[in-house]
Amino acid sequence: MRQVGSVLWPKLRVLQVYGANTGVGKTIFSSILCRAFQKRFEKVHYLKPVSTGPVEEADDRHLTILSKNIKARCLYQFADPAYSDQDIQAAVYDELRSYSTGDGSIAIVETAGGVLSPAPSGSSQADLYRPLRLPVILVGDHQLGGIGTTISAWESLRIRGYDVKSVGLFAESHYDNHSYLKDYFAERAVHAFSLPPPPERHPDSSKDAVEMQKYYDAAASLHEVDTFADMFLSAHDKRILALKSMPSEAVEAIWHPFMQHSERSASTITAIDSAYGDYFQTHTTHSQSPQGKTASNPKAQVEPSILKPAFDASASWWTQGLGHGNPELALTAAHAAGRYGHVMFASAIHEPALQLAQTLLKRMDNPRLSKVFYTDNGSAGMEVAVKMGIRAAAVRYGWDAKGDEVKILGLKNSYHGDTIGTMDASEPSVYNQKEPWYTGRGHWLDFPTVKMSKGRWRVEPAGSEVAHAEAKTFERLDDIFDFESRQDDARAYGQYLDKHLAELSQRRVKFGALILEPIILGAGGMLFADPLFQRCLVEAARAYQNTPLKPGHPIHTTSSSKHNDLDWAGMPVIFDEIFTGLYRLGRFSAASFLDVHPDVVANAKLLTGGLLPLCTTTASRSVFDAFVSEDKTDALLHGHSYTAHPVGCSVANKSLEIMGRLHGSEGWDGYRQLWQGEGNNGVAHASRQQPGIWSMWSEAFVKAISHRSQVDSVFALGSVLAISLKDADGQGYASKAAWKLRDKLLVGSQGEDWVVHSRVLGNVWYAMGAMTTEREVVEALEERIFAAIE
Amino acid sequence: MRQVGSVLWPKLRVLQVYGANTGVGKTIFSSILCRAFQKRFEKVHYLKPVSTGPVEEADDRHLTILSKNIKARCLYQFADPAYSDQDIQAAVYDELRSYSTGDGSIAIVETAGGVLSPAPSGSSQADLYRPLRLPVILVGDHQLGGIGTTISAWESLRIRGYDVKSVGLFAESHYDNHSYLKDYFAERAVHAFSLPPPPERHPDSSKDAVEMQKYYDAAASLHEVDTFADMFLSAHDKRILALKSMPSEAVEAIWHPFMQHSERSASTITAIDSAYGDYFQTHTTHSQSPQGKTASNPKAQVEPSILKPAFDASASWWTQGLGHGNPELALTAAHAAGRYGHVMFASAIHEPALQLAQTLLKRMDNPRLSKVFYTDNGSAGMEVAVKMGIRAAAVRYGWDAKGDEVKILGLKNSYHGDTIGTMDASEPSVYNQKEPWYTGRGHWLDFPTVKMSKGRWRVEPAGSEVAHAEAKTFERLDDIFDFESRQDDARAYGQYLDKHLAELSQRRVKFGALILEPIILGAGGMLFADPLFQRCLVEAARAYQNTPLKPGHPIHTTSSSKHNDLDWAGMPVIFDEIFTGLYRLGRFSAASFLDVHPDVVANAKLLTGGLLPLCTTTASRSVFDAFVSEDKTDALLHGHSYTAHPVGCSVANKSLEIMGRLHGSEGWDGYRQLWQGEGNNGVAHASRQQPGIWSMWSEAFVKAISHRSQVDSVFALGSVLAISLKDADGQGYASKAAWKLRDKLLVGSQGEDWVVHSRVLGNVWYAMGAMTTEREVVEALEERIFAAIE
Repeated sequence: MRQVGSVLWPKLRVLQVYGANTGVGKTIFSSILCRAFQKRFEKVHYLKPVSTGPVEEADDRHLTILSKNIKARCLYQFADPAYSDQDIQAAVYDELRSYSTGDGSIAIVETAGGVLSPAPSGSSQADLYRPLRLPVILVGDHQLGGIGTTISAWESLRIRGYDVKSVGLFAESHYDNHSYLKDYFAERAVHAFSLPPPPERHPDSSKDAVEMQKYYDAAASLHEVDTFADMFLSAHDKRILALKSMPSEAVEAIWHPFMQHSERSASTITAIDSAYGDYFQTHTTHSQSPQGKTASNPKAQVEPSILKPAFDASASWWTQGLGHGNPELALTAAHAAGRYGHVMFASAIHEPALQLAQTLLKRMDNPRLSKVFYTDNGSAGMEVAVKMGIRAAAVRYGWDAKGDEVKILGLKNSYHGDTIGTMDASEPSVYNQKEPWYTGRGHWLDFPTVKMSKGRWRVEPAGSEVAHAEAKTFERLDDIFDFESRQDDARAYGQYLDKHLAELSQRRVKFGALILEPIILGAGGMLFADPLFQRCLVEAARAYQNTPLKPGHPIHTTSSSKHNDLDWAGMPVIFDEIFTGLYRLGRFSAASFLDVHPDVVANAKLLTGGLLPLCTTTASRSVFDAFVSEDKTDALLHGHSYTAHPVGCSVANKSLEIMGRLHGSEGWDGYRQLWQGEGNNGVAHASRQQPGIWSMWSEAFVKAISHRSQVDSVFALGSVLAISLKDADGQGYASKAAWKLRDKLLVGSQGEDWVVHSRVLGNVWYAMGAMTTEREVVEALEERIFAAIE
Repeated sequence: MRQVGSVLWPKLRVLQVYGANTGVGKTIFSSILCRAFQKRFEKVHYLKPVSTGPVEEADDRHLTILSKNIKARCLYQFADPAYSDQDIQAAVYDELRSYSTGDGSIAIVETAGGVLSPAPSGSSQADLYRPLRLPVILVGDHQLGGIGTTISAWESLRIRGYDVKSVGLFAESHYDNHSYLKDYFAERAVHAFSLPPPPERHPDSSKDAVEMQKYYDAAASLHEVDTFADMFLSAHDKRILALKSMPSEAVEAIWHPFMQHSERSASTITAIDSAYGDYFQTHTTHSQSPQGKTASNPKAQVEPSILKPAFDASASWWTQGLGHGNPELALTAAHAAGRYGHVMFASAIHEPALQLAQTLLKRMDNPRLSKVFYTDNGSAGMEVAVKMGIRAAAVRYGWDAKGDEVKILGLKNSYHGDTIGTMDASEPSVYNQKEPWYTGRGHWLDFPTVKMSKGRWRVEPAGSEVAHAEAKTFERLDDIFDFESRQDDARAYGQYLDKHLAELSQRRVKFGALILEPIILGAGGMLFADPLFQRCLVEAARAYQNTPLKPGHPIHTTSSSKHNDLDWAGMPVIFDEIFTGLYRLGRFSAASFLDVHPDVVANAKLLTGGLLPLCTTTASRSVFDAFVSEDKTDALLHGHSYTAHPVGCSVANKSLEIMGRLHGSEGWDGYRQLWQGEGNNGVAHASRQQPGIWSMWSEAFVKAISHRSQVDSVFALGSVLAISLKDADGQGYASKAAWKLRDKLLVGSQGEDWVVHSRVLGNVWYAMGAMTTEREVVEALEERIFAAIE
């Protein structure tokens, strides 16, 4: 897998020439700029990656003829659809890299046609070259209509994340586009300039060449060209300085999340210059290790780019779904911003919010769910979930808001967010132990975990409380989800839980809600809970005898009460699917793995495909009804300023549409097949026509890793891989066992095109891609990871 | 003030024709479409708002000659720069409105040039017509380079919030753009079609006309045209149905914020179709009251648009800063999305986040502030502020996180958010009384308020505790901020506060932080606190004797301790400037009104100009240092997935840049002058070169309102106006005194072009514009408000 990223060589300046339209004079501008830069550099390179005209008219030839001192090159002479974007990107990268020697030079890279003219593969010029993200000069359109086409072309470049350093165009006096455009871009602090147009074509081609030569020489000496050249060169230097100083400036100005700042210094901060697809484009002190070939002549030595692609292995804190810098999401965001901006949501409705709510209700396929509440992030959304649950219980059981202590039932190592309410819903831990206002308000159970260890899938009891104290092994991961065949386990879990909860009920513990992260407990350490145990816990919670019962209030203690089984019983069941939902584990709903219908579900992270903060808390009608009365103070008096902001809702709609298409198409079939060994049909025992268990990481790889000596256990599900390393000092969250692996992968090896940026949780190293990451990329990662672990 | 909004007449379909470039055949497409629609409607209107060619070639003439049954009209024959966008918008609106009679008709509105070609005023076509937001057909570019120009033009329309119903273009066989574009748009679920190109121009103009006539008739009968026409007409009907059903569908699927749902029905929900500038484009049952002139012939009666502009008087819950649908913010958001998507912020840095942090630190002009922490909304940001404050205090005073009860010192009626931690920082109230997990953890003081009542500015004591029990009156609002001249008041406040706090100290109350909303307490009821009292409270808090002092720990009880006065003393001082900061009250920093340097400041709402959720919590170095140790668990273990998301940070940078320009330019001078009566120089006694006190609402208006019999008091500051109505039943938040005013303004009067959408807080009706709202608009609002109050 060849990964080409954004490049920045200190001594090789690269400028990409885009045209607002065809025929606007890109080649003439390139020629003039080449000449202007010749005064400043010994070597000036002109590169036309793809030229589509006949050979004798090809832009690079034209240029070579006109000036012998410019090294001109064309890589592909015809726009053959067989040239993939990746071929061309790699060829341009290699070509540019070969220039990055010596004392200093410049390369002008000319595109073909207009900004969005088709590349050989059919994608656009701007999309083809986006991974390199070279600084751009846009040659504006001096023709009739050129004001509009120039501004639109500039906007198309901006949407795709380009830095447009300048807009240059011919000063065509009839249309005078240049006067308008210079003002327009000046208002937007974008450099713009105009040049006199070239002379009319002379019928005699040799005389024409002489005329043009004169024109080029004159133009290259113009003040406007000098000004642009100086500005561009100085911007290049400033960009490098800024990149290099960003980490130390961050140390000055930023309070980073989740960090002990005594461990922070400029060298521990990664500067992210941009990102595309699965990769960050980073600058760190690590990335400065030379990656070029050694050469005897130091002048001939290839200078490394100070940017390095780094696979975003934490999926940017588990949010990334559709690739960084996705132009479809960018345009969707811009459309919503242009149509609405933000519009307040109290007593109001707009299309994106309504559509998103309806989509969630439909696709979660849970008949209990009825109403969607919007917030801005998972923590706020879980605060809402907690408020919904405990109030519904308080209303039904007649608890006094002031006097009764209402608790949460949950699992140990759960994590629901960083605001005080969600912290209180989690057990005491390193995350909250120093927080003066933290009050653990709950009862948290040990639970059996799923892991692969030494090539075998195992369900291991955790803690002494759980019924069957010995680990069970399973042939296939699928089998663990085959609840039909695990009726003995279910019985044992049920008996244990019933007994345990009966004791709590006798002690009159008031539970306002059961809160679970279905399948995988994320921030608590990437723990894979036995889904059967979670399912049994839901059943036990729904049979819990909360007291006292409010006199005269209908009693619901089992799920077979009124409302067609849609009413909650015992206590509301809340599923925190912020991390696990929306395809992260391969399915829209993580609850579906348990074949359980929760009463409240929270979603975030992947909701916007990895672009923007947005969270939904979806509740059942019976929970909703607890807040309805004639008294305003009975309402859920909660709401954030940007509740249901149209930009977020629109991006979420688009993301769910795209991920739904991936889910329904062949996109993920390759992954599914990786997990369908003999008998691993992956579908048979999954209820409700859900696909079986699969991961982007191959089962073969997971097995191989599980045999490494440093590895305690490993699992993979959906896009998630988690490797639990042996923790010699047993420090849990404070453990540094996984740090070494993380650091090794970030530094990478000599000569590698890209590195891996990852995060750890104590002794657990984990990785996940976007939902669009290709198997080829995952395979390359598997190789790196396998090699990095002993 | 003439406000033209988006229109939607059930029986008059309007289609706007944009061109991807000039010369792509807009007029020919319009002619064909007119003919196609003639088969479906008795009346087909063709409107060319601005035609710039010579009269005989003007598009409408061309069309009239070619078909006698089409009513063609041109409103402006020349592109005179004297025609303002508003003139043209109003003329188009009036013209279209005159068509909206009878059984059903259609209007084709043709633009001039390409999508972004200049309008007479110099703005672009797409910007000129944006307030009307008519459905669009984009005529694609069939010429060389037309693939790129067509897609870019489409993107420019999308950024500006348009719904592009279809892309049509000529099937020019040489370039074959149409094949590529049909696939391209099909992938994006955008309708696209092509038509055979017109015949070559015949040298004999009368023969040419005949040829064209034939071509038009043939083209109008093509299947592609029929399909488009049917699709467009059905989309029109669907849009109306969707708008009408949105409120009832919202009742089904949405859990609205801050609402008692027993009061909700489809008729209480406002459907927001789009928004632009200061206005929502709304559909409510209210907006269906007829606004047309009555006519004796019902067929001739003008049908009202089912959309109505509504001034967004709550500034969308106080967020709006730069107008809805701002294309500059939309493009900024898209650029960041295209450059980064979201990139994780743990141990990382990117340009937009660094720039925003540095801008805040610089422009808050508070030497204490040193580090910026990012979250997603005000509530989360205040949770962080609380954690910062109380932990810094706990570390210094050696309080035990488990045992000691750490409290907040604050004012009554404060409000800091809806998550449990911020709720706990506010006194018990209707907002939290039913919340099982709410625990008021603080001590809250009564405070004197500023208001205008019967034409006089007054500082009124609230509660019995405050020293001087009688209201004081002031000539000018400026005088209240003139602390030099109020030394007696300062002394009285100081004595009262010192005594009060000394008692608390003797009772060994541990205060982790003082939290204030400077100047205006927002959600608690739009209360204007006496700034001098708040200033004195900060001083008193900084002298507070918190106990026990940790043995061996340096004692800081006054601000004159080490660190050049930058260290906190007594307790950290937190300013919640989420509502009041960033120019909402006319200044970047609300703290500057008090001439106080808080230790922690939270900003949100206006931070992104009103587009997206983002919050910053900025802290002093001494607060930051409390979290630094060799132990990871001492860190602030807080962070949200989308922390410092690049889209939000980029939009914030752009917004602060634009608002900074407004602040520094003449933009707000008109407002400032409204408040500079005799002696009201507005600058003299404001320290640190801050401008004086001013509001977008005129002092004359505020005075006039204060004399109305229903009004208890009123104030205005910056963009905020708050009118406290007499509350006969004294129900506070549950009071419905202001509802009548709100409802009256939303329904509006017969014949009015726009209405006012506002929110109330109990008996307080308030309004605020964006920071770009023009005085003309505010004046019109003042008239409406004055007329609506008795």
